Amino acid sequence: MPLDELAHATPHPFDTAVRLTPEHEGATEGRWRGATSPAYANMIGPFGGTTAATLLNAACIHPARIGEPVALTVNFAGPIADGEFTVTARAVRTNRSTQHWSMELLQGDGVAATATAVFAVRRETWSATDAAFPQVPAADTLPRATGARVAFVRNYDLRFVRGAPVPRGEGGEREAPADSVTTLWLRDDPPRPLDAVSLAALCDVFFPRIFLRRPKFVPASTVSITTYFHADAALLAQQGTRHLLGTARALAFGNGYHDQTAELWSDDGVLLAASHQVVYYKE
Amino acid sequence: MPLDELAHATPHPFDTAVRLTPEHEGATEGRWRGATSPAYANMIGPFGGTTAATLLNAACIHPARIGEPVALTVNFAGPIADGEFTVTARAVRTNRSTQHWSMELLQGDGVAATATAVFAVRRETWSATDAAFPQVPAADTLPRATGARVAFVRNYDLRFVRGAPVPRGEGGEREAPADSVTTLWLRDDPPRPLDAVSLAALCDVFFPRIFLRRPKFVPASTVSITTYFHADAALLAQQGTRHLLGTARALAFGNGYHDQTAELWSDDGVLLAASHQVVYYKE
Repeated sequence: MPLDELAHATPHPFDTAVRLTPEHEGATEGRWRGATSPAYANMIGPFGGTTAATLLNAACIHPARIGEPVALTVNFAGPIADGEFTVTARAVRTNRSTQHWSMELLQGDGVAATATAVFAVRRETWSATDAAFPQVPAADTLPRATGARVAFVRNYDLRFVRGAPVPRGEGGEREAPADSVTTLWLRDDPPRPLDAVSLAALCDVFFPRIFLRRPKFVPASTVSITTYFHADAALLAQQGTRHLLGTARALAFGNGYHDQTAELWSDDGVLLAASHQVVYYKE
Repeated sequence: MPLDELAHATPHPFDTAVRLTPEHEGATEGRWRGATSPAYANMIGPFGGTTAATLLNAACIHPARIGEPVALTVNFAGPIADGEFTVTARAVRTNRSTQHWSMELLQGDGVAATATAVFAVRRETWSATDAAFPQVPAADTLPRATGARVAFVRNYDLRFVRGAPVPRGEGGEREAPADSVTTLWLRDDPPRPLDAVSLAALCDVFFPRIFLRRPKFVPASTVSITTYFHADAALLAQQGTRHLLGTARALAFGNGYHDQTAELWSDDGVLLAASHQVVYYKE
Protein backbone atom coordinates (compact mmCIF):
# COMPACT_ATOMS: atom_id res chain seq x y z
CA MET A 1 0.00 0.00 0.00
CA PRO A 2 1.42 3.45 -0.85
CA LEU A 3 2.26 5.54 2.19
CA ASP A 4 -0.51 8.10 1.60
CA GLU A 5 -3.16 5.36 1.57
CA LEU A 6 -1.68 3.86 4.70
CA ALA A 7 -1.96 7.27 6.36
CA HIS A 8 -5.71 7.25 5.76
CA ALA A 9 -6.19 3.75 7.11
CA THR A 10 -6.00 4.98 10.75
CA PRO A 11 -7.48 8.29 11.88
CA HIS A 12 -5.21 11.31 12.10
CA PRO A 13 -4.22 11.97 15.75
CA PHE A 14 -6.03 15.33 15.53
CA ASP A 15 -9.28 13.64 14.51
CA THR A 16 -8.89 11.31 17.47
CA ALA A 17 -8.30 14.30 19.77
CA VAL A 18 -11.48 16.17 18.73
CA ARG A 19 -13.65 13.06 18.31
CA LEU A 20 -17.09 13.14 19.96
CA THR A 21 -19.55 10.26 20.29
CA PRO A 22 -23.16 10.37 21.54
CA GLU A 23 -23.14 10.29 25.36
CA HIS A 24 -25.27 7.15 25.37
CA GLU A 25 -27.73 5.45 23.05
CA GLY A 26 -30.82 7.64 22.71
CA ALA A 27 -28.92 10.57 24.29
CA THR A 28 -30.43 14.01 23.87
CA GLU A 29 -29.10 15.58 20.71
CA GLY A 30 -26.26 17.87 21.63
CA ARG A 31 -24.58 15.84 24.42
CA TRP A 32 -21.38 14.00 23.56
CA ARG A 33 -18.48 12.20 25.17
CA GLY A 34 -14.91 13.09 24.32
CA ALA A 35 -11.54 12.41 25.86
CA THR A 36 -8.20 14.14 26.15
CA SER A 37 -5.53 12.78 23.85
CA PRO A 38 -1.96 12.09 25.09
CA ALA A 39 -0.66 13.21 21.67
CA TYR A 40 -2.06 16.72 22.32
CA ALA A 41 -1.00 17.07 25.97
CA ASN A 42 0.27 20.48 27.07
CA MET A 43 2.48 21.16 30.09
CA ILE A 44 -0.60 20.68 32.30
CA GLY A 45 -3.80 19.26 30.79
CA PRO A 46 -4.64 19.24 27.07
CA PHE A 47 -3.53 21.79 24.45
CA GLY A 48 -6.14 24.58 24.49
CA GLY A 49 -6.27 24.51 20.70
CA THR A 50 -7.69 20.98 20.68
CA THR A 51 -10.18 21.95 23.43
CA ALA A 52 -11.35 24.89 21.30
CA ALA A 53 -11.51 22.66 18.21
CA THR A 54 -13.49 19.99 20.11
CA LEU A 55 -16.09 22.56 21.21
CA LEU A 56 -16.38 23.87 17.64
CA ASN A 57 -16.66 20.27 16.41
CA ALA A 58 -19.69 19.74 18.69
CA ALA A 59 -21.59 22.43 16.78
CA CYS A 60 -20.25 21.26 13.40
CA ILE A 61 -21.52 17.68 13.85
CA HIS A 62 -24.87 18.67 15.38
CA PRO A 63 -27.71 17.58 13.04
CA ALA A 64 -29.40 21.01 13.35
CA ARG A 65 -26.30 22.93 12.26
CA ILE A 66 -26.54 25.26 9.27
CA GLY A 67 -23.70 27.01 7.49
CA GLU A 68 -20.07 27.32 8.45
CA PRO A 69 -18.27 28.92 11.40
CA VAL A 70 -17.79 32.68 11.28
CA ALA A 71 -16.84 33.32 14.93
CA LEU A 72 -15.80 31.13 17.85
CA THR A 73 -15.08 32.18 21.44
CA VAL A 74 -13.79 29.64 23.97
CA ASN A 75 -13.32 30.46 27.65
CA PHE A 76 -11.03 28.18 29.65
CA ALA A 77 -12.86 28.14 32.98
CA GLY A 78 -10.92 25.49 34.87
CA PRO A 79 -8.35 22.71 34.55
CA ILE A 80 -9.20 19.71 32.36
CA ALA A 81 -7.96 16.42 33.82
CA ASP A 82 -6.65 13.68 31.53
CA GLY A 83 -9.53 11.41 30.57
CA GLU A 84 -13.15 11.65 29.50
CA PHE A 85 -15.38 14.70 29.40
CA THR A 86 -18.87 15.66 28.25
CA VAL A 87 -19.52 18.35 25.63
CA THR A 88 -22.91 20.01 25.21
CA ALA A 89 -23.90 22.13 22.22
CA ARG A 90 -27.15 24.08 21.94
CA ALA A 91 -28.42 26.08 18.95
CA VAL A 92 -29.58 29.15 20.87
CA ARG A 93 -31.10 30.82 17.83
CA THR A 94 -31.44 29.88 14.17
CA ASN A 95 -32.10 32.65 11.66
CA ARG A 96 -32.52 32.32 7.90
CA SER A 97 -28.79 32.26 7.18
CA THR A 98 -27.11 32.48 10.60
CA GLN A 99 -27.09 30.33 13.71
CA HIS A 100 -25.87 31.07 17.23
CA TRP A 101 -24.43 28.31 19.43
CA SER A 102 -23.56 27.87 23.11
CA MET A 103 -21.27 25.03 24.14
CA GLU A 104 -19.86 23.73 27.41
CA LEU A 105 -17.19 21.20 28.33
CA LEU A 106 -18.10 19.39 31.55
CA GLN A 107 -15.90 17.20 33.69
CA GLY A 108 -16.89 15.81 37.07
CA ASP A 109 -19.29 18.29 38.63
CA GLY A 110 -17.81 21.35 36.98
CA VAL A 111 -17.76 23.36 33.79
CA ALA A 112 -14.20 23.35 32.49
CA ALA A 113 -14.83 25.47 29.38
CA THR A 114 -17.62 27.52 27.83
CA ALA A 115 -17.93 28.59 24.21
CA THR A 116 -20.12 30.47 21.79
CA ALA A 117 -20.07 30.28 18.02
CA VAL A 118 -21.73 32.01 15.10
CA PHE A 119 -22.34 29.95 11.96
CA ALA A 120 -23.53 31.39 8.66
CA VAL A 121 -24.41 30.38 5.14
CA ARG A 122 -21.98 32.60 3.25
CA ARG A 123 -22.57 34.16 -0.14
CA GLU A 124 -20.16 35.84 -2.50
CA THR A 125 -19.88 39.61 -1.97
CA TRP A 126 -17.42 42.40 -2.54
CA SER A 127 -14.15 41.44 -0.86
CA ALA A 128 -10.85 43.04 0.12
CA THR A 129 -7.94 42.39 2.44
CA ASP A 130 -6.56 45.33 4.42
CA ALA A 131 -4.05 43.35 6.47
CA ALA A 132 -0.69 42.78 4.78
CA PHE A 133 0.72 39.34 4.04
CA PRO A 134 4.15 39.27 5.72
CA GLN A 135 7.24 39.16 3.51
CA VAL A 136 8.84 35.83 4.40
CA PRO A 137 11.08 33.13 2.93
CA ALA A 138 9.29 30.01 1.63
CA ALA A 139 8.51 27.28 4.17
CA ASP A 140 10.78 24.74 2.49
CA THR A 141 13.81 27.03 2.86
CA LEU A 142 13.47 27.08 6.66
CA PRO A 143 14.36 24.31 9.13
CA ARG A 144 11.60 22.62 11.09
CA ALA A 145 11.72 23.49 14.80
CA THR A 146 12.81 20.60 17.02
CA GLY A 147 13.18 19.92 20.72
CA ALA A 148 9.56 20.49 21.76
CA ARG A 149 9.17 20.09 25.52
CA VAL A 150 5.42 19.45 25.41
CA ALA A 151 3.70 16.68 23.48
CA PHE A 152 1.21 18.66 21.38
CA VAL A 153 3.92 20.69 19.66
CA ARG A 154 5.23 17.46 18.06
CA ASN A 155 1.95 17.30 16.12
CA TYR A 156 2.75 20.56 14.38
CA ASP A 157 5.40 21.24 11.78
CA LEU A 158 6.60 24.72 12.79
CA ARG A 159 9.16 26.73 10.80
CA PHE A 160 10.02 29.99 12.53
CA VAL A 161 10.72 33.10 10.49
CA ARG A 162 11.15 35.21 13.63
CA GLY A 163 10.26 35.10 17.32
CA ALA A 164 11.16 31.47 18.00
CA PRO A 165 11.31 30.45 21.66
CA VAL A 166 14.76 31.50 22.88
CA PRO A 167 16.80 28.80 24.65
CA ARG A 168 17.47 29.64 28.28
CA GLY A 169 20.93 29.80 29.87
CA GLU A 170 22.04 27.64 32.78
CA GLY A 171 20.37 29.93 35.30
CA GLY A 172 17.09 29.65 33.35
CA GLU A 173 17.54 33.21 32.14
CA ARG A 174 17.88 34.57 28.64
CA GLU A 175 17.84 37.81 26.76
CA ALA A 176 14.32 39.03 26.06
CA PRO A 177 13.63 40.22 22.51
CA ALA A 178 12.50 43.79 21.94
CA ASP A 179 8.99 42.84 20.86
CA SER A 180 6.51 39.99 21.10
CA VAL A 181 6.15 39.12 17.42
CA THR A 182 6.35 35.53 16.17
CA THR A 183 6.03 34.76 12.47
CA LEU A 184 6.15 31.13 11.38
CA TRP A 185 5.01 28.56 8.87
CA LEU A 186 2.83 25.92 10.48
CA ARG A 187 0.80 22.84 9.61
CA ASP A 188 -0.39 19.61 11.17
CA ASP A 189 2.11 16.77 11.36
CA PRO A 190 1.42 14.24 9.96
CA PRO A 191 -0.07 16.50 7.26
CA ARG A 192 -3.88 16.72 7.39
CA PRO A 193 -6.15 18.59 4.94
CA LEU A 194 -7.13 21.91 6.51
CA ASP A 195 -10.69 22.46 7.74
CA ALA A 196 -12.36 24.88 10.16
CA VAL A 197 -11.89 22.55 13.13
CA SER A 198 -8.14 22.11 12.61
CA LEU A 199 -7.80 25.83 11.83
CA ALA A 200 -9.40 26.62 15.23
CA ALA A 201 -6.62 24.61 16.88
CA LEU A 202 -3.84 26.08 14.69
CA CYS A 203 -4.92 29.56 15.86
CA ASP A 204 -3.79 28.63 19.37
CA VAL A 205 -0.36 27.24 18.41
CA PHE A 206 1.27 30.62 19.14
CA PHE A 207 2.64 30.20 22.66
CA PRO A 208 1.83 32.91 25.23
CA ARG A 209 3.69 36.05 24.20
CA ILE A 210 4.90 36.49 27.79
CA PHE A 211 7.22 33.50 27.16
CA LEU A 212 8.91 35.54 24.45
CA ARG A 213 8.87 38.87 26.18
CA ARG A 214 10.21 37.91 29.64
CA PRO A 215 13.77 36.87 30.34
CA LYS A 216 12.57 34.16 32.75
CA PHE A 217 9.85 31.55 32.78
CA VAL A 218 6.52 32.54 34.35
CA PRO A 219 3.43 30.31 34.45
CA ALA A 220 0.89 31.40 31.82
CA SER A 221 -2.24 30.05 30.17
CA THR A 222 -4.94 31.18 27.77
CA VAL A 223 -8.11 32.34 29.51
CA SER A 224 -10.26 33.18 26.47
CA ILE A 225 -9.73 32.89 22.71
CA THR A 226 -11.84 34.32 19.88
CA THR A 227 -11.34 33.32 16.27
CA TYR A 228 -12.93 34.87 13.19
CA PHE A 229 -13.03 32.62 10.13
CA HIS A 230 -12.47 34.42 6.85
CA ALA A 231 -12.30 31.24 4.76
CA ASP A 232 -15.11 28.91 3.86
CA ALA A 233 -14.80 25.13 3.47
CA ALA A 234 -13.93 25.37 -0.24
CA LEU A 235 -11.06 27.78 0.40
CA LEU A 236 -9.76 25.69 3.31
CA ALA A 237 -9.90 22.58 1.12
CA GLN A 238 -7.83 24.41 -1.53
CA GLN A 239 -5.11 24.96 1.07
CA GLY A 240 -4.96 21.19 1.61
CA THR A 241 -1.93 20.09 3.62
CA ARG A 242 0.40 22.96 2.68
CA HIS A 243 1.92 25.17 5.37
CA LEU A 244 -0.03 28.19 6.61
CA LEU A 245 1.74 31.40 7.46
CA GLY A 246 1.01 32.64 10.98
CA THR A 247 1.98 35.81 12.77
CA ALA A 248 1.14 36.85 16.33
CA ARG A 249 1.91 39.70 18.70
CA ALA A 250 0.80 41.03 22.05
CA LEU A 251 -0.73 44.47 22.50
CA ALA A 252 -0.34 44.96 26.26
CA PHE A 253 0.74 43.12 29.43
CA GLY A 254 -0.33 44.18 32.94
CA ASN A 255 -1.77 43.05 36.27
CA GLY A 256 -1.62 39.36 35.45
CA TYR A 257 -3.14 39.38 31.97
CA HIS A 258 -1.95 40.09 28.45
CA ASP A 259 -3.68 39.89 25.12
CA GLN A 260 -2.35 38.68 21.80
CA THR A 261 -3.62 38.76 18.28
CA ALA A 262 -2.80 36.37 15.43
CA GLU A 263 -3.35 36.15 11.69
CA LEU A 264 -3.34 32.86 9.76
CA TRP A 265 -2.73 33.12 6.03
CA SER A 266 -2.78 30.61 3.19
CA ASP A 267 0.60 30.10 1.55
CA ASP A 268 -0.58 32.20 -1.38
CA GLY A 269 -1.59 35.21 0.74
CA VAL A 270 -5.27 34.80 1.61
CA LEU A 271 -6.20 35.66 5.22
CA LEU A 272 -7.91 32.51 6.50
CA ALA A 273 -8.51 33.54 10.12
CA ALA A 274 -7.83 36.25 12.67
CA SER A 275 -7.60 35.11 16.27
CA HIS A 276 -7.38 37.01 19.53
CA GLN A 277 -6.79 35.80 23.07
CA VAL A 278 -6.22 36.93 26.61
CA VAL A 279 -3.62 35.08 28.66
CA TYR A 280 -3.13 34.84 32.42
CA TYR A 281 0.45 35.09 33.68
CA LYS A 282 1.77 34.94 37.18
CA GLU A 283 4.40 37.60 37.89
CA MET B 1 -27.24 74.86 42.12
CA PRO B 2 -23.91 74.67 40.19
CA LEU B 3 -24.18 72.92 36.84
CA ASP B 4 -22.10 69.91 37.87
CA GLU B 5 -24.39 69.19 40.81
CA LEU B 6 -27.40 69.57 38.58
CA ALA B 7 -25.86 67.00 36.25
CA HIS B 8 -25.84 64.48 39.07
CA ALA B 9 -29.43 65.13 40.07
CA THR B 10 -30.77 63.00 37.18
CA PRO B 11 -29.08 59.82 35.97
CA HIS B 12 -26.78 60.02 32.96
CA PRO B 13 -28.59 58.75 29.83
CA PHE B 14 -26.03 55.93 29.58
CA ASP B 15 -26.87 54.74 33.11
CA THR B 16 -30.54 54.76 32.16
CA ALA B 17 -29.74 52.73 29.00
CA VAL B 18 -27.87 49.96 30.85
CA ARG B 19 -30.08 49.96 33.96
CA LEU B 20 -31.32 46.57 35.18
CA THR B 21 -33.88 45.92 37.92
CA PRO B 22 -34.86 42.57 39.49
CA GLU B 23 -37.42 40.86 37.24
CA HIS B 24 -39.95 40.73 40.07
CA GLU B 25 -39.85 40.71 43.85
CA GLY B 26 -38.19 37.55 45.07
CA ALA B 27 -36.89 36.87 41.54
CA THR B 28 -34.11 34.32 41.20
CA GLU B 29 -30.78 36.03 41.48
CA GLY B 30 -29.47 36.69 38.01
CA ARG B 31 -32.71 37.59 36.19
CA TRP B 32 -33.30 41.26 35.44
CA ARG B 33 -35.54 43.55 33.42
CA GLY B 34 -34.07 46.21 31.20
CA ALA B 35 -35.37 48.36 28.38
CA THR B 36 -34.05 49.94 25.22
CA SER B 37 -33.39 53.65 25.46
CA PRO B 38 -34.46 56.08 22.70
CA ALA B 39 -31.30 58.12 23.38
CA TYR B 40 -29.18 55.13 22.29
CA ALA B 41 -31.24 54.08 19.25
CA ASN B 42 -29.30 52.91 16.20
CA MET B 43 -30.61 52.85 12.62
CA ILE B 44 -32.63 49.75 13.53
CA GLY B 45 -32.92 48.72 17.19
CA PRO B 46 -30.57 49.81 19.97
CA PHE B 47 -26.85 50.65 19.63
CA GLY B 48 -24.95 47.36 20.03
CA GLY B 49 -22.53 49.04 22.42
CA THR B 50 -25.27 49.62 24.99
CA THR B 51 -26.50 46.04 24.52
CA ALA B 52 -22.97 44.76 25.21
CA ALA B 53 -22.65 47.12 28.19
CA THR B 54 -26.03 46.00 29.58
CA LEU B 55 -24.99 42.33 29.43
CA LEU B 56 -21.70 43.16 31.16
CA ASN B 57 -23.61 45.19 33.74
CA ALA B 58 -25.71 42.10 34.61
CA ALA B 59 -22.56 40.29 35.75
CA CYS B 60 -21.14 43.42 37.44
CA ILE B 61 -24.20 43.93 39.64
CA HIS B 62 -24.67 40.23 40.47
CA PRO B 63 -24.16 39.69 44.22
CA ALA B 64 -21.91 36.67 43.58
CA ARG B 65 -19.53 38.61 41.30
CA ILE B 66 -15.83 38.71 42.18
CA GLY B 67 -13.15 40.88 40.58
CA GLU B 68 -13.32 43.01 37.47
CA PRO B 69 -13.93 42.24 33.79
CA VAL B 70 -10.97 40.90 31.80
CA ALA B 71 -12.83 39.62 28.72
CA LEU B 72 -16.32 40.08 27.30
CA THR B 73 -17.83 38.46 24.20
CA VAL B 74 -21.30 39.47 23.01
CA ASN B 75 -23.07 37.73 20.12
CA PHE B 76 -25.95 39.59 18.48
CA ALA B 77 -28.28 36.70 17.70
CA GLY B 78 -31.39 38.54 16.53
CA PRO B 79 -33.09 41.92 16.32
CA ILE B 80 -33.97 43.71 19.58
CA ALA B 81 -37.32 45.50 19.42
CA ASP B 82 -37.80 48.83 21.19
CA GLY B 83 -39.07 48.17 24.70
CA GLU B 84 -38.43 45.83 27.60
CA PHE B 85 -36.21 42.76 27.69
CA THR B 86 -34.97 40.22 30.24
CA VAL B 87 -31.29 39.67 30.99
CA THR B 88 -29.98 36.54 32.69
CA ALA B 89 -26.48 36.17 34.16
CA ARG B 90 -25.05 32.96 35.54
CA ALA B 91 -21.67 32.44 37.24
CA VAL B 92 -20.70 29.24 35.44
CA ARG B 93 -17.54 28.72 37.48
CA THR B 94 -15.90 30.59 40.32
CA ASN B 95 -12.21 29.95 40.98
CA ARG B 96 -10.00 31.54 43.64
CA SER B 97 -9.35 34.71 41.67
CA THR B 98 -11.31 34.28 38.42
CA GLN B 99 -14.97 33.88 37.54
CA HIS B 100 -16.63 32.80 34.29
CA TRP B 101 -20.04 34.17 33.31
CA SER B 102 -22.73 33.34 30.74
CA MET B 103 -25.38 35.93 29.94
CA GLU B 104 -28.41 36.08 27.66
CA LEU B 105 -30.75 38.84 26.53
CA LEU B 106 -34.28 37.53 26.04
CA GLN B 107 -37.19 39.23 24.33
CA GLY B 108 -40.52 37.57 23.59
CA ASP B 109 -39.82 33.87 23.09
CA GLY B 110 -36.35 34.31 21.69
CA VAL B 111 -32.74 34.87 22.65
CA ALA B 112 -31.65 38.17 21.08
CA ALA B 113 -28.06 38.14 22.38
CA THR B 114 -25.68 35.79 24.18
CA ALA B 115 -22.54 36.73 26.05
CA THR B 116 -19.69 35.31 28.08
CA ALA B 117 -17.35 37.18 30.39
CA VAL B 118 -14.25 36.48 32.42
CA PHE B 119 -13.78 38.42 35.64
CA ALA B 120 -10.62 38.39 37.74
CA VAL B 121 -9.13 39.84 40.88
CA ARG B 122 -6.06 41.48 39.39
CA ARG B 123 -2.70 41.88 41.10
CA GLU B 124 0.26 44.01 40.13
CA THR B 125 2.77 42.20 37.90
CA TRP B 126 5.42 43.01 35.33
CA SER B 127 3.80 45.14 32.64
CA ALA B 128 4.58 46.41 29.16
CA THR B 129 2.78 47.84 26.16
CA ASP B 130 3.79 46.60 22.72
CA ALA B 131 1.12 48.46 20.76
CA ALA B 132 2.02 52.03 19.83
CA PHE B 133 0.01 55.07 20.95
CA PRO B 134 -0.90 56.90 17.73
CA GLN B 135 0.66 60.30 17.07
CA VAL B 136 -2.33 62.65 17.04
CA PRO B 137 -3.25 66.29 17.70
CA ALA B 138 -4.85 66.99 21.09
CA ALA B 139 -8.64 66.52 21.35
CA ASP B 140 -9.31 70.20 22.04
CA THR B 141 -7.61 71.23 18.77
CA LEU B 142 -10.09 69.19 16.70
CA PRO B 143 -13.72 70.01 15.92
CA ARG B 144 -16.46 67.84 17.34
CA ALA B 145 -18.23 65.80 14.64
CA THR B 146 -21.79 66.96 13.94
CA GLY B 147 -24.69 65.85 11.79
CA ALA B 148 -25.19 62.38 13.27
CA ARG B 149 -27.99 60.55 11.47
CA VAL B 150 -28.64 58.06 14.28
CA ALA B 151 -29.58 58.94 17.86
CA PHE B 152 -26.88 57.10 19.82
CA VAL B 153 -24.05 58.99 18.13
CA ARG B 154 -25.34 62.22 19.72
CA ASN B 155 -24.42 60.73 23.11
CA TYR B 156 -20.77 60.61 22.10
CA ASP B 157 -18.38 63.49 21.61
CA LEU B 158 -16.34 62.30 18.61
CA ARG B 159 -13.36 64.21 17.20
CA PHE B 160 -11.98 62.54 14.10
CA VAL B 161 -8.25 62.53 13.42
CA ARG B 162 -8.70 60.41 10.29
CA GLY B 163 -11.25 58.09 8.74
CA ALA B 164 -14.38 60.16 9.41
CA PRO B 165 -17.53 59.07 7.58
CA VAL B 166 -17.31 60.62 4.12
CA PRO B 167 -20.37 62.62 2.97
CA ARG B 168 -22.05 61.09 -0.05
CA GLY B 169 -22.67 62.91 -3.29
CA GLU B 170 -26.10 63.46 -4.86
CA GLY B 171 -26.12 59.99 -6.36
CA GLY B 172 -25.37 58.50 -2.93
CA GLU B 173 -21.85 57.69 -4.10
CA ARG B 174 -18.53 58.91 -2.81
CA GLU B 175 -14.86 58.19 -3.15
CA ALA B 176 -13.76 55.29 -0.99
CA PRO B 177 -10.59 55.85 1.04
CA ALA B 178 -7.61 53.58 0.46
CA ASP B 179 -7.84 51.88 3.84
CA SER B 180 -10.30 51.22 6.66
CA VAL B 181 -8.56 53.06 9.51
CA THR B 182 -10.43 55.47 11.76
CA THR B 183 -8.60 57.31 14.55
CA LEU B 184 -10.61 59.60 16.80
CA TRP B 185 -10.98 61.11 20.24
CA LEU B 186 -14.18 59.96 21.93
CA ARG B 187 -16.06 60.29 25.20
CA ASP B 188 -19.59 60.17 26.54
CA ASP B 189 -21.69 63.30 26.09
CA PRO B 190 -22.72 64.60 28.54
CA PRO B 191 -19.35 63.69 30.09
CA ARG B 192 -19.53 60.66 32.40
CA PRO B 193 -16.66 59.20 34.49
CA LEU B 194 -15.26 56.17 32.66
CA ASP B 195 -15.88 52.66 34.01
CA ALA B 196 -15.76 49.16 32.53
CA VAL B 197 -19.42 49.23 31.52
CA SER B 198 -19.17 52.50 29.59
CA LEU B 199 -15.84 51.37 28.10
CA ALA B 200 -17.58 48.23 26.77
CA ALA B 201 -19.97 50.51 24.88
CA LEU B 202 -17.25 52.92 23.69
CA CYS B 203 -15.47 49.92 22.10
CA ASP B 204 -18.40 49.60 19.68
CA VAL B 205 -18.59 53.27 18.65
CA PHE B 206 -16.41 52.59 15.58
CA PHE B 207 -18.94 52.17 12.78
CA PRO B 208 -18.65 49.11 10.52
CA ARG B 209 -15.47 49.52 8.46
CA ILE B 210 -17.42 48.56 5.33
CA PHE B 211 -19.12 52.00 5.56
CA LEU B 212 -15.69 53.58 5.14
CA ARG B 213 -14.31 51.19 2.58
CA ARG B 214 -17.20 51.06 0.08
CA PRO B 215 -18.22 53.92 -2.18
CA LYS B 216 -21.92 53.14 -1.60
CA PHE B 217 -24.09 52.29 1.38
CA VAL B 218 -24.58 48.61 2.16
CA PRO B 219 -26.54 47.28 5.15
CA ALA B 220 -24.16 46.06 7.89
CA SER B 221 -24.29 45.10 11.55
CA THR B 222 -22.04 43.64 14.23
CA VAL B 223 -22.52 39.91 14.73
CA SER B 224 -20.06 39.31 17.57
CA ILE B 225 -17.77 41.58 19.60
CA THR B 226 -14.98 40.63 22.02
CA THR B 227 -13.33 43.16 24.31
CA TYR B 228 -10.25 42.65 26.48
CA PHE B 229 -9.95 45.04 29.41
CA HIS B 230 -6.41 46.13 30.18
CA ALA B 231 -7.43 48.73 32.76
CA ASP B 232 -8.78 48.11 36.25
CA ALA B 233 -11.35 50.30 38.01
CA ALA B 234 -8.69 52.55 39.55
CA LEU B 235 -7.09 53.29 36.17
CA LEU B 236 -10.49 53.91 34.55
CA ALA B 237 -11.40 56.27 37.40
CA GLN B 238 -8.16 58.20 36.77
CA GLN B 239 -9.27 58.77 33.19
CA GLY B 240 -12.44 60.43 34.51
CA THR B 241 -14.39 62.27 31.82
CA ARG B 242 -11.46 63.14 29.55
CA HIS B 243 -11.45 61.98 25.91
CA LEU B 244 -10.13 58.52 25.06
CA LEU B 245 -8.15 57.96 21.90
CA GLY B 246 -9.55 55.21 19.70
CA THR B 247 -8.28 53.62 16.54
CA ALA B 248 -9.90 50.86 14.47
CA ARG B 249 -9.24 49.02 11.24
CA ALA B 250 -10.50 46.00 9.34
CA LEU B 251 -8.32 43.03 8.48
CA ALA B 252 -10.40 41.35 5.76
CA PHE B 253 -13.77 41.56 4.00
CA GLY B 254 -15.34 38.64 2.13
CA ASN B 255 -18.46 36.55 1.57
CA GLY B 256 -20.70 38.76 3.67
CA TYR B 257 -18.50 39.22 6.75
CA HIS B 258 -15.58 41.41 7.75
CA ASP B 259 -13.67 41.74 10.98
CA GLN B 260 -12.33 44.85 12.64
CA THR B 261 -10.04 45.49 15.54
CA ALA B 262 -9.92 48.54 17.81
CA GLU B 263 -7.67 49.95 20.51
CA LEU B 264 -8.88 52.40 23.17
CA TRP B 265 -6.20 54.45 24.88
CA SER B 266 -6.24 56.89 27.78
CA ASP B 267 -5.33 60.44 26.78
CA ASP B 268 -1.90 59.92 28.33
CA GLY B 269 -1.10 56.79 26.33
CA VAL B 270 -2.22 53.80 28.42
CA LEU B 271 -3.99 51.03 26.47
CA LEU B 272 -7.32 50.62 28.28
CA ALA B 273 -8.96 48.01 26.04
CA ALA B 274 -8.54 46.07 22.81
CA SER B 275 -11.74 45.12 21.03
CA HIS B 276 -12.43 42.89 18.07
CA GLN B 277 -15.61 42.26 16.13
CA VAL B 278 -17.06 40.52 13.11
CA VAL B 279 -19.61 42.41 11.03
CA TYR B 280 -22.22 41.14 8.58
CA TYR B 281 -22.63 43.15 5.36
CA LYS B 282 -24.95 42.60 2.47
CA GLU B 283 -23.23 43.00 -0.89
